Amino acid sequence: MARAWHLMSRPKGLPTADNFALKELAEAPLGDGQIRVANRWLSVDPYMRGRMNDVKSYVPPFQIDAPMDGGAVGEVVESRAQGLSAGDHVLHMAGWRDEAVIDAKAATKLPDLGVQPQAFLGNLGLTGGTAYFGLLEAASAREGDIVFISAAAGAVGSAAVQIAKAKGMTVIGSARGPDKCDFVRSLGADAAVDYSAGPIVKSLSAAAPNGIDVYFDNVGGDHLDAAFALARQNARFAICGMIDSYNSGEPAAFRYIMRVIAMRIRMQGFIYTDYLPRLGEFHRDMGQWIAAGQVQSRDTVVEGLERMPEAFLGLFEGTNTGKMLVKV
Amino acid sequence: MARAWHLMSRPKGLPTADNFALKELAEAPLGDGQIRVANRWLSVDPYMRGRMNDVKSYVPPFQIDAPMDGGAVGEVVESRAQGLSAGDHVLHMAGWRDEAVIDAKAATKLPDLGVQPQAFLGNLGLTGGTAYFGLLEAASAREGDIVFISAAAGAVGSAAVQIAKAKGMTVIGSARGPDKCDFVRSLGADAAVDYSAGPIVKSLSAAAPNGIDVYFDNVGGDHLDAAFALARQNARFAICGMIDSYNSGEPAAFRYIMRVIAMRIRMQGFIYTDYLPRLGEFHRDMGQWIAAGQVQSRDTVVEGLERMPEAFLGLFEGTNTGKMLVKV
Repeated sequence: MARAWHLMSRPKGLPTADNFALKELAEAPLGDGQIRVANRWLSVDPYMRGRMNDVKSYVPPFQIDAPMDGGAVGEVVESRAQGLSAGDHVLHMAGWRDEAVIDAKAATKLPDLGVQPQAFLGNLGLTGGTAYFGLLEAASAREGDIVFISAAAGAVGSAAVQIAKAKGMTVIGSARGPDKCDFVRSLGADAAVDYSAGPIVKSLSAAAPNGIDVYFDNVGGDHLDAAFALARQNARFAICGMIDSYNSGEPAAFRYIMRVIAMRIRMQGFIYTDYLPRLGEFHRDMGQWIAAGQVQSRDTVVEGLERMPEAFLGLFEGTNTGKMLVKV
Repeated sequence: MARAWHLMSRPKGLPTADNFALKELAEAPLGDGQIRVANRWLSVDPYMRGRMNDVKSYVPPFQIDAPMDGGAVGEVVESRAQGLSAGDHVLHMAGWRDEAVIDAKAATKLPDLGVQPQAFLGNLGLTGGTAYFGLLEAASAREGDIVFISAAAGAVGSAAVQIAKAKGMTVIGSARGPDKCDFVRSLGADAAVDYSAGPIVKSLSAAAPNGIDVYFDNVGGDHLDAAFALARQNARFAICGMIDSYNSGEPAAFRYIMRVIAMRIRMQGFIYTDYLPRLGEFHRDMGQWIAAGQVQSRDTVVEGLERMPEAFLGLFEGTNTGKMLVKV
C-alpha cells in the first residue's frame, strides 16, 4: 500500500515527531488523464514549515490528518495519460509519500539534460531558481557587487554563492561552524563567516570592511540586522527566507533598521513561482554553469520515507549541507 | 550681534534644553560673492535629530560648540554678489540663527509664485518634495492604491495625504489624538487612525479591511510592523523617517516582518536630495495643486529664535500640526 506523511497537529515552535504520522493511503484507481508515480526523491525545504501553520500565505496551509505534499521526482509506473508512459521520470508536487496518483498535467516530464533526476529538485529546480531570480532580479545583483549570502551552506545559499561567483561578484557567506565555512569557501566564496562563533555583525564587519551592496537573506533576525548595519548606499536586499523566525513566536529585533533611510536600502521579498514565466532564461544559464562545472551540487541524502520528518527537522538543526533530500 | 544655536553636547535619548546654547557669532565681514541674510523663518525638522549623533549619515553630524544649521528663508540685507540685492528673499541652509553670512551660490532666490516665503520650507520645499518623491517614486504609488501614511498630521505626512488624494488614491492616515485625526480627515484622508488609542495594528486593520498597497513611513516601530501585517501582495513601502527610534537606543521589534516574503513587499529608503535633479516636475505639479487648493499648508509657528530648541523638542512631543517653523 502507498503511504504518505500526514500532519496530525500544528507545531508550536519547533516541530516534533509527534506532529506527523505515516499512514496508508486508500486504494487509488487511475482516472482518465492520470498517472501513478513511484517517487524516488522527495524535496525537503524550509518553506514547508510555514505550511504547518494555519495561516494563509503564498501556499495554502497543510490540512490536519491529510497527506502533506511538496516537490518530488519519481518514475511513472502506470499511465492513463497521453504523452507519459511507464518508465518516464517526472517532477511533481505530490511529495511526502512513496507513491502518488496525479493528473498528468500536474507533472513535468524531465528533459534529458544528462543530469541526475534529483537535480530538478535542486540546482535546476526550486532551489537553484530561487537563488537565481532572488539574486539577479529581486536584488538586481551585478558584476562587481559585494554580496552577503546567509545560510550559504544550505541549498539555496550554496546555489546563490556559485551564481554570484559565476557573475563576477565578491561573495561573503555565513554558515554554522568551521566545516560548513570550509564548504562555503570551497564553492568559491571570497570569505565565510561562522555565525556560531560570535555576533554576526562583528564577523561580517571584519569580512566586509567596505560594506555590502547586496544581501541575500535566508535567515532574518541578527543576519538581517547585520546587513542593515553594513549596507552601502543603494544596497539591495532580496528577502528569500527567515528561518530564524519560522519556529519562533517572538518578534525579531533590529538595531540598525534605520539605516534603510540613510543608505537608501531597497528590500524586496520574492517567491520563486513569480518567475515561472522566465524559467527559460534560468534553465539556459544554469545549464551552462552546470556543464562548465561553475555550479555544482552537494546533497544531503536521508534514506527512506520513514525518515522524512527527521530530514525536515534537520533543516532547523543545520544537519544539511547543500540540498536536503529524502531518497525513497 | 548675530546669534546662533550651538550644540553643546550630544543628547542621549530625548534631547533636553541643556544640549543647546544660544551664542553670539563673531563679527563676520562680507567676502566677495557673499551675502548677509536676516533670517525670517527657520525650518524645524525631525531629521535634525540624527545630526546630533556622532554618526556618519547622509548629512554630516553637527559639531560640538559650533553653530547648527538647517533650512531657512531670509531677506538679503547686504550683498557683495552679482544677482542678489538687499531686499531679495532667499532660501538657504544656514538656519538655527538670526543672521547668516553665506556664499551667494549657496542661496536660492525665491521665485515670485504668489506664495508666502515660508512655503519654500514647506510644501514647495524639503517637506513637500519629500512627500512627493517618496510617495510617487520610492513607493511607486498610483491611482487606485490604498495608501497608509503615518504621522499624517505632521509636515511631510500632511503633504503626502494631499498629494495622494490629488492623485486619486484611498488614504488612511495615523495621528495622535482626536483633534489631529480630525485635521487628517480635513486634508481629505478617507480615514484617520488614532495611534494613542490602542495598538495601531488593530486600528489599521479596521480602517483598511482589504489591506494596503502602499505605506509611507515617518514613524517606524509599531507603525511599520502594522504595515507589514496589513500589506497586500506587491505592496510598496517608502521609508522616509522613523521618529519612533530617533531618541531610543532600543532595537525596534517586528512581529510581522516575515510577511515581506509572502506579500513580496518592496521597502525603499530614500532621501529628498536624491531627487534634486527632478525638482522641475515637483514644482510644476505642486504649484498646480497649491493654485487649485488641492494642497494646503498648515504651519505650527513658534515665535523667536530663543525658542528654537523648544520648537525642535516639540516635534517629538507632537506639539506641531503640519510644518513646524520658527519665526525670527
